[in-house]
Amino acid sequence: MPFSFDFQTRSALIAFLLLLAAASSLAQQPQAASTLQQITSELEPSNGVWTAQQIAAMGRLRDAALRDAYATTELQHLTDNIGPRLSGSPQAQQAVEYVAAEMRALGAEVQMEKTTVPHWVRGVETGQLVSWPGMGPDATQKIVLTALGGSVATPAEGLTAEVIVVDSLKDLNALSPDAVKGKILLFNEHFDKRLAAQGLGFEAYGQAVAYRAGAPALGASRGAAAVLVRSVGGAEYRLPHTGMTEYDPQLTKIPAASVTAEDADLLVHLTSQGHVRMKLTLTPQTLPRADSYNVIADWKGSEHPEQVVIVSGHLDSWDLGTGAIDDGAGVAVAMQAIHLLSQSGIHPRRTIRFVAWMAEEEGSDGAQTYLAEHSGDIANHVGAIESDSGAGHPTGIYLAGKPELQAWLHPISQVLEPIGATQLVISKETGADISGLTDKGVPSFAPLQDGRFYFNYHHTAADTFDKIDAHELNENSAVMTVLAYALADSPQPAPR
Amino acid sequence: MPFSFDFQTRSALIAFLLLLAAASSLAQQPQAASTLQQITSELEPSNGVWTAQQIAAMGRLRDAALRDAYATTELQHLTDNIGPRLSGSPQAQQAVEYVAAEMRALGAEVQMEKTTVPHWVRGVETGQLVSWPGMGPDATQKIVLTALGGSVATPAEGLTAEVIVVDSLKDLNALSPDAVKGKILLFNEHFDKRLAAQGLGFEAYGQAVAYRAGAPALGASRGAAAVLVRSVGGAEYRLPHTGMTEYDPQLTKIPAASVTAEDADLLVHLTSQGHVRMKLTLTPQTLPRADSYNVIADWKGSEHPEQVVIVSGHLDSWDLGTGAIDDGAGVAVAMQAIHLLSQSGIHPRRTIRFVAWMAEEEGSDGAQTYLAEHSGDIANHVGAIESDSGAGHPTGIYLAGKPELQAWLHPISQVLEPIGATQLVISKETGADISGLTDKGVPSFAPLQDGRFYFNYHHTAADTFDKIDAHELNENSAVMTVLAYALADSPQPAPR
Repeated sequence: MPFSFDFQTRSALIAFLLLLAAASSLAQQPQAASTLQQITSELEPSNGVWTAQQIAAMGRLRDAALRDAYATTELQHLTDNIGPRLSGSPQAQQAVEYVAAEMRALGAEVQMEKTTVPHWVRGVETGQLVSWPGMGPDATQKIVLTALGGSVATPAEGLTAEVIVVDSLKDLNALSPDAVKGKILLFNEHFDKRLAAQGLGFEAYGQAVAYRAGAPALGASRGAAAVLVRSVGGAEYRLPHTGMTEYDPQLTKIPAASVTAEDADLLVHLTSQGHVRMKLTLTPQTLPRADSYNVIADWKGSEHPEQVVIVSGHLDSWDLGTGAIDDGAGVAVAMQAIHLLSQSGIHPRRTIRFVAWMAEEEGSDGAQTYLAEHSGDIANHVGAIESDSGAGHPTGIYLAGKPELQAWLHPISQVLEPIGATQLVISKETGADISGLTDKGVPSFAPLQDGRFYFNYHHTAADTFDKIDAHELNENSAVMTVLAYALADSPQPAPR
Repeated sequence: MPFSFDFQTRSALIAFLLLLAAASSLAQQPQAASTLQQITSELEPSNGVWTAQQIAAMGRLRDAALRDAYATTELQHLTDNIGPRLSGSPQAQQAVEYVAAEMRALGAEVQMEKTTVPHWVRGVETGQLVSWPGMGPDATQKIVLTALGGSVATPAEGLTAEVIVVDSLKDLNALSPDAVKGKILLFNEHFDKRLAAQGLGFEAYGQAVAYRAGAPALGASRGAAAVLVRSVGGAEYRLPHTGMTEYDPQLTKIPAASVTAEDADLLVHLTSQGHVRMKLTLTPQTLPRADSYNVIADWKGSEHPEQVVIVSGHLDSWDLGTGAIDDGAGVAVAMQAIHLLSQSGIHPRRTIRFVAWMAEEEGSDGAQTYLAEHSGDIANHVGAIESDSGAGHPTGIYLAGKPELQAWLHPISQVLEPIGATQLVISKETGADISGLTDKGVPSFAPLQDGRFYFNYHHTAADTFDKIDAHELNENSAVMTVLAYALADSPQPAPR
């Protein structure tokens, strides 16, 4: 999960872009034409920052990115050979060592930055209806669910209670204070698939994920025995979506799981007819925090090696799938940036720093460690890029920072025009792991991607290597590499 | 699964229809126009079988079908309130009693036809890689799988063996005779999703399902310890597809499971790199055969009550989902035919016989019993309809019987024109449960449906009520009801 919950700015900008598109289709009309002239003059072809030689080098990096099999091969190794990489797991450690070795092999200067991470381990997770309206003798019904990340366990033999369904906090507040006491409370907030189908998956995610995070506190405050949420995601294949939940330290920690959209619908239907009782068994364990690492690999700058541009993704993943779209893809794309520089022998003025962040899924502990360890050095961070929204076809770049960045980067969008990645969209957020840097004024960036399908697989067992289109993965690598080169080789750092 | 494996005839006919469509688009050209005239004259608007009053009654039944909430409500009860209905299970018995009571409530004459059925019960089913190329210390990898119907169990503690992958029987035959001895053999035959996307899902199914059925014998004949098949279906959501498998009584019965497409790809990739060992645990039980029933409900004919037209679907389902598309939908559509006759008070000349078949998924025992019980009465069966391909928008009718049936039914296709169900496609097969009647010369029929999505859900946990579009369900009910009325009220029975 790359973004937190404030989407107003991005929404406004997307709306603005849609308006631009509409304006473009009205180009025959005099009024619209004058608007277009204004836009064109704002974003003029060359802004004098980069030389023709530099622009040509960017074109070569872009083309090399599209031909390079490196990211795909690395991603398949991370997902197939190493597998799921939950923070604190043996595979997460294996991935740290593997990526460090690969970066060393490319000639980068590698540093293992120690951090501590949550160590939560999934256990048994089953749901079964034990009574419901219309139930026949000896009948059973399975409820497909998965524990939310960080959930406490039920008793090992399970807990059995009545299920109460609410569609929203408003519905919950309308119930009598004791209505959910001792019961299993399901928040049936729907993921808006129509928004996602229009490419606004993060908008849909932002709307629904608040319940995933807040459910245990909302339930515990009313005495619920456990909470369920409708899966936050777009799949219709009886597939539960996991993800981190949160506890209020002042309240009882109650077990929390995510049911599939189908099972939520079933519970809605049956509870509308009468009393429904369910047995819920979750046996996850929260072990002592574990040692782990951010993998940092510097491709040293030729003029200002102390100044850095970060290219990054997060190396940890959820445990149900193998973390291909979230976020092996981001790590692989960032690895490929170093591979392309190594292959071409280019050393830009400033250092390009690869980072494979640890524990993004469970609180971004790696990123917090980085921020603390580099607190005296923020001024030397001239830019930070993270890819953590999958590997769909990129249509441009999200940027967080001064509005001037948009015009400053215009030549880059032209270099990326052959792959269709021309949009430069100002956003408050670019990536969770670089949000601390963003907050301290470091210009930050993310590929802007076709996200129509991301939330079908996100945080599920189906987040596997086959979901990756190798060409689109390379398009993202082209975006990250060209942008990183531009930030690292400009005469002056990007405006901040 | 409604059809067996011979699809040549249907394919040829679909190709013919595509040619017709192409011809239609060339209608401006003289040559094509003359072809069209020929077709039009063959299928003239009225063939004199039914009166204008009867045609008007069909139109009223069609319109009433589209407005009726009965099928949807019944289907939701079967799937949500009763749940999975595996042969021999308590829920299958509950469904028998429920459907019989519903048919009695409509005024039909109900008969419970006793049959015996397989009683196979799914157990634990897990797959785990225990060693593979690139495996790190303490690493684990889950293989998502489900036992095939009828599979024997592994030892309770599982069996661990090397995995060998073959893409086809040809590949298997190319291996040395001992190559799979003691090993777990995966047949990686792909379900052709491109065929399915073109509406030829049954073609794709027919190609791949032979391995699902034949795998245990192929494996056992070479000494394999167990067999796996790549799931026969189109889903890309880490969803295993179950379905019946077969044993050769001359050979050792070895455990058989279906892995997801993703897990098959993983095994292909890892075995291409070196040795892969897997622990497979399946604990299904094959219990003694159980008593069960076909539910038969006669809506008595006014002139020839001894002559019958069957409307049907199968009541049993696989156990992973709740059997909505396979085949609660078929049962509900057939129930609605009786509901519409009951509501309208129409009693056609002949009896319309509702049948909810039992045990289609595990060998069609119910249908075999029916055939044996009614062997002296086949001549009185003037037609049989089964819906067992989901509830997608119907584009016409499959028919098995004399070629004259096509012209004979032309007025029916005109009545169904407002819902787009105009195609009359001759097929060798219509439905598994009515194939015995077909073989004995009874004209048989099935709705011809948009099957692009059926095999995404077929035999999986995701075959649930939400997959049903209520309007399309009603369109199918319109097809079945109008056709049944036409067969039951024609002056003479359909040509046979």
